[in-house]
Amino acid sequence: MEKQESNEFIIEGRNAVIEAFRSGKPVDRVYILDGCQDGPILTIKREARKQDTLIKYVPRERLDQLSETGKHQGVIAWAAAYEYGDIETMLQAAKEKGEPPFLFLLDNIEDPHNLGAIIRTANLAGAHGVIIPKNRAVGLTATVARTSAGALNYTPVAKVTNLAKTIEELKEKGLWFVCADMEGDSMYDLDLKGPIGLVIGSEGEGVGRLVKEKCDMTAAIPMKGDIDSLNASVAAGVLAYEIVRQRLL
Amino acid sequence: MEKQESNEFIIEGRNAVIEAFRSGKPVDRVYILDGCQDGPILTIKREARKQDTLIKYVPRERLDQLSETGKHQGVIAWAAAYEYGDIETMLQAAKEKGEPPFLFLLDNIEDPHNLGAIIRTANLAGAHGVIIPKNRAVGLTATVARTSAGALNYTPVAKVTNLAKTIEELKEKGLWFVCADMEGDSMYDLDLKGPIGLVIGSEGEGVGRLVKEKCDMTAAIPMKGDIDSLNASVAAGVLAYEIVRQRLL
Repeated sequence: MEKQESNEFIIEGRNAVIEAFRSGKPVDRVYILDGCQDGPILTIKREARKQDTLIKYVPRERLDQLSETGKHQGVIAWAAAYEYGDIETMLQAAKEKGEPPFLFLLDNIEDPHNLGAIIRTANLAGAHGVIIPKNRAVGLTATVARTSAGALNYTPVAKVTNLAKTIEELKEKGLWFVCADMEGDSMYDLDLKGPIGLVIGSEGEGVGRLVKEKCDMTAAIPMKGDIDSLNASVAAGVLAYEIVRQRLL
Repeated sequence: MEKQESNEFIIEGRNAVIEAFRSGKPVDRVYILDGCQDGPILTIKREARKQDTLIKYVPRERLDQLSETGKHQGVIAWAAAYEYGDIETMLQAAKEKGEPPFLFLLDNIEDPHNLGAIIRTANLAGAHGVIIPKNRAVGLTATVARTSAGALNYTPVAKVTNLAKTIEELKEKGLWFVCADMEGDSMYDLDLKGPIGLVIGSEGEGVGRLVKEKCDMTAAIPMKGDIDSLNASVAAGVLAYEIVRQRLL
């Protein structure tokens, strides 16, 4: 599922970028020469929108600076070093191991170090996969791969259009969802043993309202201190290991 | 044990600057991105006026130039350097709260993001302080302050010459030491309720031999995955919260 490549890589030139989109390669963002409007560029824009790829319009100097080949033809794209997995495969893996499914769902984690650390935690906590939304959130960049310490080679990461809808679909397959929320019940008071999806919010804003409403439980980590919240990857680790602890009982 | 550093210190990012004001830290001046008017920035301006802090509006290039972390979010402040705390004060704080002492000891954490995240965790887990060694390890830099999300204003950090010797001294005062170690006993099987020092090793090498030998217990986080180890700050969080859980029982 995840064929490894060593880096996020740059794709330059119209045909190469169009090919990348058409082959299904996960393209994180594309820079287009400001004012460029010809046929191939319009095709690239259309493909980018279809895949929720970030488009940025930049001056020629910027492209010249970023170009590795000197032949960008007005367009440079960045593709993820890793391929995304799918949810079906995650559930299948749980089944094959005879374990209740255990998935992480990340609602717009923006810091690649956090995403990498969470994938690393998911691997070691025995989760079967990580689900991230297509929009806004950081994708599988080189930094994510590096901070995952190799976990990205083992733990599949799926990208979905609508996290709330994915939760609904997975509920039909028997999963329960617990949402990290400072206002929730103490995680020690919840039953987290069954097939479960652990939902972690973004660094600044926590879990979005629409996603939170789909969850069956909200879990709070007891806080004794003076400040607001744990780092997102630490919070994910603490919650994941409460699930691990309960499953070991 | 160390008292102070003479330098002025940069604080970057909205939350970190707001926290610095709120904790009463003397902020000398603050640079704000010209034209920036959102809620957190208005809060910073209000706090700055209250404390007669000099405010200067500068273009983005200037902030980028001054930034040490690359993540100034439109605001950089200068405050007196963070002072190192001392262990006596930490033990005193525990006594005043009527709690058994709970300290973090970090054996050569090298990544400032990890150190900041661990201080943040120590604060929220209710630990009374963090002890770091003088040599090799990272100190209290701007990145540490920012990633601690304000915790550095509340949780004292002491710097000691010899971590093993410090452990010996603290054992005489009744503390027990538990060392994070993959080869150790499952943390769920240990009694972690009393006065405790949690010893976390460096990112690459774990806890050094001399320090490990001084510890009373070694605690392993159960690992189910394919890779070697959790991120150091995640591991610290998971272990700290097992201590919190047992203390709540």
